[in-house]
Amino acid sequence: MKQTIEFRNRPKIIGSYSIVGPKEGQGPFGEYFDYVMKDDSFGEKTYELAERKMFEHAITGAIEKAGLNTGDINLMLAGDLLNQIISSSYTARDMNIPYLGLFGACSTMAETLAVGATLVNGKHFRNVICATGSHFSTAERQFRFPLELGNQRVPTSQWTVTAAGASVLSLEGEGPEITMATFGKVVDFGIVDVNNMGAAMAPSAASVIHTHFEDTGRKPTDYDLIVTGDLGKLGAEILVDLLEDKGIKLGPSYSDCGHSYFTRNQDTMCGASGCGVSASVLNSYIVKKLNKGEYKRVLFVPTGALMSTTASQQGESIPGVSHAIVIEAGGRK
Amino acid sequence: MKQTIEFRNRPKIIGSYSIVGPKEGQGPFGEYFDYVMKDDSFGEKTYELAERKMFEHAITGAIEKAGLNTGDINLMLAGDLLNQIISSSYTARDMNIPYLGLFGACSTMAETLAVGATLVNGKHFRNVICATGSHFSTAERQFRFPLELGNQRVPTSQWTVTAAGASVLSLEGEGPEITMATFGKVVDFGIVDVNNMGAAMAPSAASVIHTHFEDTGRKPTDYDLIVTGDLGKLGAEILVDLLEDKGIKLGPSYSDCGHSYFTRNQDTMCGASGCGVSASVLNSYIVKKLNKGEYKRVLFVPTGALMSTTASQQGESIPGVSHAIVIEAGGRK
Repeated sequence: MKQTIEFRNRPKIIGSYSIVGPKEGQGPFGEYFDYVMKDDSFGEKTYELAERKMFEHAITGAIEKAGLNTGDINLMLAGDLLNQIISSSYTARDMNIPYLGLFGACSTMAETLAVGATLVNGKHFRNVICATGSHFSTAERQFRFPLELGNQRVPTSQWTVTAAGASVLSLEGEGPEITMATFGKVVDFGIVDVNNMGAAMAPSAASVIHTHFEDTGRKPTDYDLIVTGDLGKLGAEILVDLLEDKGIKLGPSYSDCGHSYFTRNQDTMCGASGCGVSASVLNSYIVKKLNKGEYKRVLFVPTGALMSTTASQQGESIPGVSHAIVIEAGGRK
Repeated sequence: MKQTIEFRNRPKIIGSYSIVGPKEGQGPFGEYFDYVMKDDSFGEKTYELAERKMFEHAITGAIEKAGLNTGDINLMLAGDLLNQIISSSYTARDMNIPYLGLFGACSTMAETLAVGATLVNGKHFRNVICATGSHFSTAERQFRFPLELGNQRVPTSQWTVTAAGASVLSLEGEGPEITMATFGKVVDFGIVDVNNMGAAMAPSAASVIHTHFEDTGRKPTDYDLIVTGDLGKLGAEILVDLLEDKGIKLGPSYSDCGHSYFTRNQDTMCGASGCGVSASVLNSYIVKKLNKGEYKRVLFVPTGALMSTTASQQGESIPGVSHAIVIEAGGRK
């Protein structure tokens, strides 16, 4: 049964914005981000409030870059890593935009784009905004240890980024076009180590990419870029292996946002993780390359680890979920 | 700007199923539910596992009542109250269905129906399943106090139900038709009491119902039933007042699932709350009445309190979000 849907009306990303923390700004994508915060607290008294302010900043920025006002946006689709996705919900309250909350852990950027594109493609709404993000200090203390503990980081660990990104979708205006979405399954290979997210997510990425090629009859060379979300170094290697076992060679067009997010000397072990990774790379580097025509067609595959302290404490393993979105340079109908 | 969308192809609820705990089964809707558990643990060693088993039971039941197999379902749209919506995600893993996780607290049944109906209406997918639920013992200990503490319940409190419901949507088959959805805003009147959910949610319900009537030009008498999710006694009274202030008299067709869910002697103060309330009442009582033609047109408005312990501990108030779904008896095109 097909998991891939087509958007015949080709909803466009008519505005996009990325905001990151100082460490993230020093990485290889630094020059592409719209805004680099001077410090992670962003002038707020809690990191949760800083994360929320980042969301508002990203959303406002994307709307402005689309040449629109907040009142022109029909619906906000957003999610984040915090319990009850409070960054998204409180931002929706403060911005007074009708709201759908989504939770797909770090696959959330794909989820918001898939649902948003469906609504715009069906001409139900004119303009929707899709947003997600993460903050190192809120995620670490919720999912792992108190920051003050100063735990040593293990070789398989990844650095949860402080970053957010937002995209305005519309049928009117100019920008990269969303032409397909492949909805992924929840896949679990029995990983129980909360410091090995790459291994927990790679099987779901392999599943959805394999399904995407089966559903569409396409192959990796049909894409200028196949990019996963935040598998990191180890997870990306596992993905390549898993797909080779299924007869798919990803080849040189494959990369992972998390693996490329920091330089080697930034000391982040396997790389970056968090909703903000794929959200900020999409809404800066990838959209800019598509707008310039340097990429014609991209397979964007944010990857989520459905990690929960409650489930882990009750002995569960950590499943992953990933969704794949096809984004093409504008004007190629 | 309109917040209401129309589904011209009229996706149908071709299968629906409800499962509840023993206390819930003794309430006024008892005879309508498909399955009443003998005890809340459902044979599992943790309440979280019991909640997950309820989800699987509801989903399997709805698919069976639609005359389909699990393999016929293209997508599962689900959410719940637990952090990282683990009941939904682990059920999606175990059932091996492509999955979108949603979070709208107790408004989730509306969210899943709205997104699911959009996908089916657009002929992107043939059959999707929408599900949500809640469990008294998992929700109480996550959001309020340890169960062992035996806290006294205050007069404004509501009883989180142990219940789940699922609906299969399709363009093929017979059943009530989903014809519109009005997407709500996050509304906050400054409630900080975690034992007064009705007051926290009522303003968002008033907002979306008011918008629905404005967008569509309809009035309360155009509906045989206008039913909110889990406002409870106090919340429902506040809603009626808020709408009267806006010139809308809901009249005798209005009721609230949470207010009607238990009898007076079941000692639940203001009534029932939780995602399971509207999910189980829709997928039993309401669908059955629509199928019999006793209702022609229903406005179904699940209500969510976006409560978070982190946000509350940091001094935030509790905002609400509600969405409205129009469901009509089948065969009335």
